[in-house]
Amino acid sequence: MQTIHQMMERSWAAWQDFRMRPLSDRARLMREIAAGLEALGDGIIEIAMRETNLPEARLKGERARTAFQLRSYADACERGDWLELRIDTADLQRIPPKADIRKMMVPMGPVLVYGASNFPFAYSTAGGDTACALAAGCTVVVKAHPAHPDTSDAVAACIRKALTACGFPEDIFLHVHTQTLEEGRALVIHPRTRAVGFTGSHLAGRSIFNWANERKDPIPVFAEMGSVNPIFLLPERLSEDASGIAGICAGSITLGVGQFCTNPGLIIGVEGPGLDQFMDALSDGIRAIPAAPMLHAGISKAYASKKTAALDQNDVQVLATGLSGTEDLHGTATIATVDGDAFLANPLLHEEVFGPYSLVVRCRDAEQMLRIAEGLEGQLTCTVMGTNDEIAHHPALMAAIADRCGRLILNGVPTGVEVCLSMHHGGPYPSSTDARFTSVGADGIRRFTRPLSYQQWSDTLLPDALKNANPFGYLRIVNNEPSTGPVIA
Amino acid sequence: MQTIHQMMERSWAAWQDFRMRPLSDRARLMREIAAGLEALGDGIIEIAMRETNLPEARLKGERARTAFQLRSYADACERGDWLELRIDTADLQRIPPKADIRKMMVPMGPVLVYGASNFPFAYSTAGGDTACALAAGCTVVVKAHPAHPDTSDAVAACIRKALTACGFPEDIFLHVHTQTLEEGRALVIHPRTRAVGFTGSHLAGRSIFNWANERKDPIPVFAEMGSVNPIFLLPERLSEDASGIAGICAGSITLGVGQFCTNPGLIIGVEGPGLDQFMDALSDGIRAIPAAPMLHAGISKAYASKKTAALDQNDVQVLATGLSGTEDLHGTATIATVDGDAFLANPLLHEEVFGPYSLVVRCRDAEQMLRIAEGLEGQLTCTVMGTNDEIAHHPALMAAIADRCGRLILNGVPTGVEVCLSMHHGGPYPSSTDARFTSVGADGIRRFTRPLSYQQWSDTLLPDALKNANPFGYLRIVNNEPSTGPVIA
Repeated sequence: MQTIHQMMERSWAAWQDFRMRPLSDRARLMREIAAGLEALGDGIIEIAMRETNLPEARLKGERARTAFQLRSYADACERGDWLELRIDTADLQRIPPKADIRKMMVPMGPVLVYGASNFPFAYSTAGGDTACALAAGCTVVVKAHPAHPDTSDAVAACIRKALTACGFPEDIFLHVHTQTLEEGRALVIHPRTRAVGFTGSHLAGRSIFNWANERKDPIPVFAEMGSVNPIFLLPERLSEDASGIAGICAGSITLGVGQFCTNPGLIIGVEGPGLDQFMDALSDGIRAIPAAPMLHAGISKAYASKKTAALDQNDVQVLATGLSGTEDLHGTATIATVDGDAFLANPLLHEEVFGPYSLVVRCRDAEQMLRIAEGLEGQLTCTVMGTNDEIAHHPALMAAIADRCGRLILNGVPTGVEVCLSMHHGGPYPSSTDARFTSVGADGIRRFTRPLSYQQWSDTLLPDALKNANPFGYLRIVNNEPSTGPVIA
Repeated sequence: MQTIHQMMERSWAAWQDFRMRPLSDRARLMREIAAGLEALGDGIIEIAMRETNLPEARLKGERARTAFQLRSYADACERGDWLELRIDTADLQRIPPKADIRKMMVPMGPVLVYGASNFPFAYSTAGGDTACALAAGCTVVVKAHPAHPDTSDAVAACIRKALTACGFPEDIFLHVHTQTLEEGRALVIHPRTRAVGFTGSHLAGRSIFNWANERKDPIPVFAEMGSVNPIFLLPERLSEDASGIAGICAGSITLGVGQFCTNPGLIIGVEGPGLDQFMDALSDGIRAIPAAPMLHAGISKAYASKKTAALDQNDVQVLATGLSGTEDLHGTATIATVDGDAFLANPLLHEEVFGPYSLVVRCRDAEQMLRIAEGLEGQLTCTVMGTNDEIAHHPALMAAIADRCGRLILNGVPTGVEVCLSMHHGGPYPSSTDARFTSVGADGIRRFTRPLSYQQWSDTLLPDALKNANPFGYLRIVNNEPSTGPVIA
């Protein structure tokens, strides 16, 4: 544990420097990392292909997304809207006199980031959590994912190079491969660790959450832990285009061998000819899908065993399977169906089967669909396929669905998570441990910040963002009014 | 427990109505409650005087503050900046096409509020937590504080009257007196409870936090749990006006018999003639303070025993005591002193003594002051008495102090918590369980909300706040630019 202790102390010491740097310096570092990732060329793609079984095009796309994230959060960092600047000026005539108070978000300190296996670039070493933490002014300690250690090492080296190029202390970013659960726990409970970002399984995420909350001083954990991302099919919309909807569902279920956190694992419709037609077309679509290798043996085995367990449940019937593969790691697309009563009675069927699998639930009527919506666990996303009239006429269903998710999609699919300010990627437990924060989009920076109020400070001593002059033109709320101008003292 | 179960189910059912109400309706309800509190006249003041021992003027002031809070958060509710509206419009030409995504904050559901003993109005039944939850669109269940049950009942009746006057379901607000710890726990762990607001002791706050996090689906707890609110005296400033600073410190330490969460219980200076002069003047000030009755027997006993324990520690010397009282509940002002070495070595001296007590720590030098700052537990506030030059020349000390608190005051006192948007009332653990949220000021509304993204929704189906037209002129971030106008589709 001595190494972990030394590492966290180094991260803390580096934070004393990094927290003082202007936002433009942080942004420069992030852009340098983005350029460095691109400069790694095909070499890093080959390493990642070997370690993850993901195809070249997907990995190149993911690297581009990772660089985009870094630049996008660098822009947001400089734009400063995440600083949540609030200024209330003094009123010395009031009885009692009112002091000048100004508030902004400040970094928390060293952030521990767990790399995710399904996104070796975008949610690993230089991924979204690292980018958000650096934008916030926090130092970062990455625990590499054991499924892609070489990819993680190469990206870590790229970050260190960027730090040197920018003239920053190297300990702003530290990278560690741990072997044991005890080491993981030591990182979470270390007094210098101020927050944790994680994407992975519920078992691991909940352990981290528990460790963090059992500390003498609990720390925030943002753990994203899986989701079945239900799709609700309303009858009128289905009668318009059951085949078209089935086609985009088949694509979303099998995209990336079903290894996305927003993969739709549950489709809920009302029995009738529209749903029959949907299931036929979905089956046709799935049967044409070739098997493809999954990320690693653990994920492929878990897919097989969770799928078998689901298919073994009473009243569950297989609707269709994709083309089967020849390799051990191959995941074969599979869809099954069950009626609403059996689904409601069996909690196992509510669980995520991580991979290209989805379960179609046939509800007796709209009332049963509402009961299923109300009983769902928290989700990253819910999707509704419905006409405008149907949505408008089912307020209770829409409220129940909204209540169970972080993103509500109309007539689209949940896969494809846009990196933008309006994105919320997070949701009620167990999809994440804190439904109040997102891990995608620049609002994710806030996960690693907290507010600090300055009362009665001289203008010269205030942080630049709160000074009267507002030299960077930040958006600030001044005496309850939004303003991008200076404060007239 | 049947009663608690029924109550939470009623609160949940009422939420299905309340969450749909426009912001203007929520604001109207809050203003009606404020008017109702004022209409209770002297009767409620007499009840509260009997139950809390607080003087008439203080209680009248606190009632006025409570009404101000309700109206101020009603204004903020209607102004809508807490909605954090973000819109990214579609780009169908992009490859792949970019969907329209819009995000806003939505209410979490029933909020459990624990009344606080030291603010029978402002942090109890119709206090800050209740006002924030109602503004957020959450229903509220208040657990009355056992020290002022009649005050709480009278305020609850006033809220029910306001609900009726506004034509709202009565279950939007529910009020319960519990007798046992088990009932308190049942409220926190009930599946319908979505968040908790609490102000009180560390023991109770941490229990609530643990219960909430041990749930199958953990829920957010904002517990404010005490703070010693250190004041740092820098030598130059002290040499300018040791007596003046001592005077305002004496007032802050003894205000309201020291029963404020921002009461300064620790004063840290560097040994020398300035500090000697400060201690003399502070002692003179304290000696003139008459004893006054504390809130209730439990608080008065705890004050006596915690103070005795602190004064019994090695190297602690009493500097001065106020005039002593004749009644059992009287709290006598007391200040003591200890050197920096003894303070650093003895964790008991870092603990809060709730009441009119403060400990002056005499540091050997600036280096020891820095070490004390670095070792402090999390605080609601820290105060620095220093000249501009001193602040500018001690960046490490200022960073360490900022790191340990939620509000940083320069040349003022921490008591007197302004209700405004720039106020942060919360801080690193153990001063609160979540340093990211405030319990005072309109940003406190966010404690009971979470983001929800709408992807690819028709304009007609979107919540009003996210529609293109922006009829209420809310501040929104549209394609990364702030705007109060409509979106041109």
